[in-house]
Amino acid sequence: MSVMAPSPEKKLTGLVAATFTPFTPEGELNLVKIGPYVDYLTKKQGVNRIFVNGTTGESMSLSVAERKILAEEWCEKAKGKMHQVIVHVGCMSLKDSQELARHAAEIKADAIAVIAPSFFKPSTTDALRSFLQKVASHAPNLPFYYYHIPSVTGVNVLVRDVLEGIEELIPSFSGVKFSGSDLMDFGQCVSYSQPHWSLFYGMDEQLLAALAMGANGAVGSTYNYVGCPVNELISAFEKGDLVQARTIQFKMQELLRYASKLGFDLGVNKQLMNEVSGLCLGPPRLPVMPCPHAHALSITQKYHSIFPEY
Amino acid sequence: MSVMAPSPEKKLTGLVAATFTPFTPEGELNLVKIGPYVDYLTKKQGVNRIFVNGTTGESMSLSVAERKILAEEWCEKAKGKMHQVIVHVGCMSLKDSQELARHAAEIKADAIAVIAPSFFKPSTTDALRSFLQKVASHAPNLPFYYYHIPSVTGVNVLVRDVLEGIEELIPSFSGVKFSGSDLMDFGQCVSYSQPHWSLFYGMDEQLLAALAMGANGAVGSTYNYVGCPVNELISAFEKGDLVQARTIQFKMQELLRYASKLGFDLGVNKQLMNEVSGLCLGPPRLPVMPCPHAHALSITQKYHSIFPEY
Amino acid sequence: MSVMAPSPEKKLTGLVAATFTPFTPEGELNLVKIGPYVDYLTKKQGVNRIFVNGTTGESMSLSVAERKILAEEWCEKAKGKMHQVIVHVGCMSLKDSQELARHAAEIKADAIAVIAPSFFKPSTTDALRSFLQKVASHAPNLPFYYYHIPSVTGVNVLVRDVLEGIEELIPSFSGVKFSGSDLMDFGQCVSYSQPHWSLFYGMDEQLLAALAMGANGAVGSTYNYVGCPVNELISAFEKGDLVQARTIQFKMQELLRYASKLGFDLGVNKQLMNEVSGLCLGPPRLPVMPCPHAHALSITQKYHSIFPEY
Amino acid sequence: MSVMAPSPEKKLTGLVAATFTPFTPEGELNLVKIGPYVDYLTKKQGVNRIFVNGTTGESMSLSVAERKILAEEWCEKAKGKMHQVIVHVGCMSLKDSQELARHAAEIKADAIAVIAPSFFKPSTTDALRSFLQKVASHAPNLPFYYYHIPSVTGVNVLVRDVLEGIEELIPSFSGVKFSGSDLMDFGQCVSYSQPHWSLFYGMDEQLLAALAMGANGAVGSTYNYVGCPVNELISAFEKGDLVQARTIQFKMQELLRYASKLGFDLGVNKQLMNEVSGLCLGPPRLPVMPCPHAHALSITQKYHSIFPEY
Repeated sequence: MSVMAPSPEKKLTGLVAATFTPFTPEGELNLVKIGPYVDYLTKKQGVNRIFVNGTTGESMSLSVAERKILAEEWCEKAKGKMHQVIVHVGCMSLKDSQELARHAAEIKADAIAVIAPSFFKPSTTDALRSFLQKVASHAPNLPFYYYHIPSVTGVNVLVRDVLEGIEELIPSFSGVKFSGSDLMDFGQCVSYSQPHWSLFYGMDEQLLAALAMGANGAVGSTYNYVGCPVNELISAFEKGDLVQARTIQFKMQELLRYASKLGFDLGVNKQLMNEVSGLCLGPPRLPVMPCPHAHALSITQKYHSIFPEY
Repeated sequence: MSVMAPSPEKKLTGLVAATFTPFTPEGELNLVKIGPYVDYLTKKQGVNRIFVNGTTGESMSLSVAERKILAEEWCEKAKGKMHQVIVHVGCMSLKDSQELARHAAEIKADAIAVIAPSFFKPSTTDALRSFLQKVASHAPNLPFYYYHIPSVTGVNVLVRDVLEGIEELIPSFSGVKFSGSDLMDFGQCVSYSQPHWSLFYGMDEQLLAALAMGANGAVGSTYNYVGCPVNELISAFEKGDLVQARTIQFKMQELLRYASKLGFDLGVNKQLMNEVSGLCLGPPRLPVMPCPHAHALSITQKYHSIFPEY
Repeated sequence: MSVMAPSPEKKLTGLVAATFTPFTPEGELNLVKIGPYVDYLTKKQGVNRIFVNGTTGESMSLSVAERKILAEEWCEKAKGKMHQVIVHVGCMSLKDSQELARHAAEIKADAIAVIAPSFFKPSTTDALRSFLQKVASHAPNLPFYYYHIPSVTGVNVLVRDVLEGIEELIPSFSGVKFSGSDLMDFGQCVSYSQPHWSLFYGMDEQLLAALAMGANGAVGSTYNYVGCPVNELISAFEKGDLVQARTIQFKMQELLRYASKLGFDLGVNKQLMNEVSGLCLGPPRLPVMPCPHAHALSITQKYHSIFPEY
Repeated sequence: MSVMAPSPEKKLTGLVAATFTPFTPEGELNLVKIGPYVDYLTKKQGVNRIFVNGTTGESMSLSVAERKILAEEWCEKAKGKMHQVIVHVGCMSLKDSQELARHAAEIKADAIAVIAPSFFKPSTTDALRSFLQKVASHAPNLPFYYYHIPSVTGVNVLVRDVLEGIEELIPSFSGVKFSGSDLMDFGQCVSYSQPHWSLFYGMDEQLLAALAMGANGAVGSTYNYVGCPVNELISAFEKGDLVQARTIQFKMQELLRYASKLGFDLGVNKQLMNEVSGLCLGPPRLPVMPCPHAHALSITQKYHSIFPEY
């Protein structure tokens, strides 16, 4: 297999927000929040693409029925307002993933994505590819993304190996949400990438590094509340103004560094979104714990001191 | 909290087999196998207790509907033939676990067990205890076991900390399936254990060590095919014949060591059961890969050379 | 390779204390403490064997010259008072290990031991065996022990694989200090062990488990201060009184569990020894940090409440 | 502590090669190779700075005496030919590190660097800072670099935390060799960096990412044999030609990816250098194993097919 030329410079895709799932205080789905959430992202954050029912959306803590209801609501409310709704359909169970893939096609999602199963971990790259193939084949007309997040799944395959000849297995293959720090593997994916694929980077705190390596876009949870500055980061990068791009990246890092010192997890992340957006998306579901109130306040203050203009 | 006296010597519980899930060659549930499976365990392996829909049973690769059907079939077929059917109801999703707990009560399972959720990992012992409590409360009349298997879940809480005053949270608490190698933690659980609790050890390959430390019994996948020799191991231990107990333990270890050199995983384990029992339980489901035929043959030969009498 | 019969019941070796290295308050070797230390172990702790310059002795924080001086002093002061002085000569550098092995022979140590190098980790079992062989050959007349402690070194070879035909490579091979929790591997070592080998177990907090599996003895740091009760544990085990053996093991575990909650590391361990023995062995050397005074007091109180008779 | 402005654009430092240590076939130091090695780097690879006795140099497998002899020879042979010789003096033992630091000052090295000790790992950032301080103070007039390589040491402190007010502890502090993949931490270091510090990136395979994040230069082993193309990568980056920079980075990655499939470790790395340079630097020292001949050939062919012009 010969190395391909680095991808010709494509226009970067706009940011994709990995959405939180709105719950009532009692922990049930709170669907009425979804319309306002879509409006918030498009109008206040400059974000026109979403990745729903992913890690940020606590999909693994939802039942299959809940995931369907949510996917449907997101697709309906985003229609005409957003450019792309990617529905994550990965589960521990192949059966459930297949059912969700079929459902995503029925509700006319724009694309689906699948994470590596992580309770039983694929023992080889081929086991993972077979799993992905058997999900994709249940929604053959939807663009398919592989969702790589080894720090969460513990599945440390090289994505480049997953990509090898993948379109023969999965004709609808369209790209990767790459949420890992191995930028050699990422670079090799870029080098091998096809013109119609998208390689989204998913570690928001080091997006600039991945843009330099050739990322086509970004998917992440922080774009729920730092969409505007990161859009500016991308513009600066596209204009070749690395100093400005870095300035913004360092601010984002400073926020996350501050939050990390207090213990930054999904519960804290969600509460930060609640505080910044005013959307009242509720607490997380167990086993994720809600954010202590004092931490939420403190991180929100830091947010406003770093990004006073938003 | 003062240390309690070591548990008075209780009679050891008989072996509990963690059952495999029978699939057709196409990968669908194969319920007709369950009746013969029950008979095989009781008549050929001397095993009268089962732990269903656990790790060995590939529960995380099943849909909720499949888990219910299986649990029902196991309970029905085991009725009158076995002493105990423990239904594992742990899932990544609290909702699903609660639904399965209610179902287990409806079908009159003897007990339920819950593993720590592992996609989102509880960040503290209290987060885990809350999760367990919220499942147990949906089947308050069924004895409840915590299933600890840190090498699979990555949840490394000390079980002893989980146990602290646990009956105030979970009145139905009845014990632990302890599938970890930290025998200090296990010993501290034994030391703290209540008379009506059972501490089952779950690393079959070092059961003897846990018996010395005070285990009340054993749950594991290998008891599907080495039930008889391990029953003898337990008898030898109870009689104080450590030399004989070791001889048997070392044989089991030799089998597993041999299998490990070839790559021992759940697919291989299941195929070994197929070969030894003749039950035709089918292949595993993706992402677990089926066992290469040559490996299965070779391990089965080893089995028969080590345990010629069975 | 056929399985061997489990080792015929050998008389258990007495406890081996892994010694701390005495420092002055300024952090230099404090050799005058070694004579009293030997007396303390033999007279107050009932311990007649020592393992010097090991992990507990902070050997990796010492220069080669310091290790020689210490080894010499331990051998001299133990002469006529102790049954065995095992000098650990393992280093990151093969050169240094060889020099220390030759020196151990010159000063007439009773045996040497070598840990797996851990900065560069042997990539295969054979790489490790070659390393061990090239050290052992510089002291061919001294009994040689392999020191296995994967939680510290990150070298996770199976000891059983290290042992395969090892006497052809290392004629002086005499056993293992096994400080790991994989009791299947340990059991397979026992099963393969030669009559003149000793398999010392090194996780003090679960010694009873290893005794059941066939350990010949124990080497550890806690025997510096719980030598007497653990001698009783061993006696109880030899008499078949598991309930009594467990009672003592659980007490030891309770002490370590208490200490762990406060952060039990080598600095704390050393300070506990200082408090219990009154020997004034000084602080540890950087990067190990000294124990906060309040913790030391608190753990010492716990020690005296658990073991009031000593 | 307020965030500082991102560092004004400094001119990038030229590449620093982390040198291999030349051995005779018998495994002794082969000092006569050092002169030609210096010439090779400056004349054929365009590299004028070296980092000696680091990981690539197998320093942990050397005795202190050997490290002194090597450091001396490198300094002497590089005099007048190279811009900078950084001598790594980190050891497991503080004593040894101090001795090497004093020696580096005596032989007029340009700077010293220290890795985190990894047998006993510093339990806090402050423990690490104390260790570094106690080495630096023995060569107070030499610029001091902290060498961060968590994948090898297992010491996962945030470098940004190490840097906090570090000049109060270590007035000679001059920067970091950052060989980690956490580019948020790296970005925060850049953001905090002082004008006279250098932040060298050390994962050669993703250098471009770190340059985008603000790295001042690069230290690595591959610059022994891909110095020329990586110099071009840096030039392209400085001119804003990311497409060209990526093309070169992807080629380097392709080489390493190819090598990794065969098992790329220090032994293979050294043999690749031997093949490309013709310098005959010998095999590595145990526990690193020499590279199988067939692998060396195959990787060298790949090198020449990817970089035919060199």
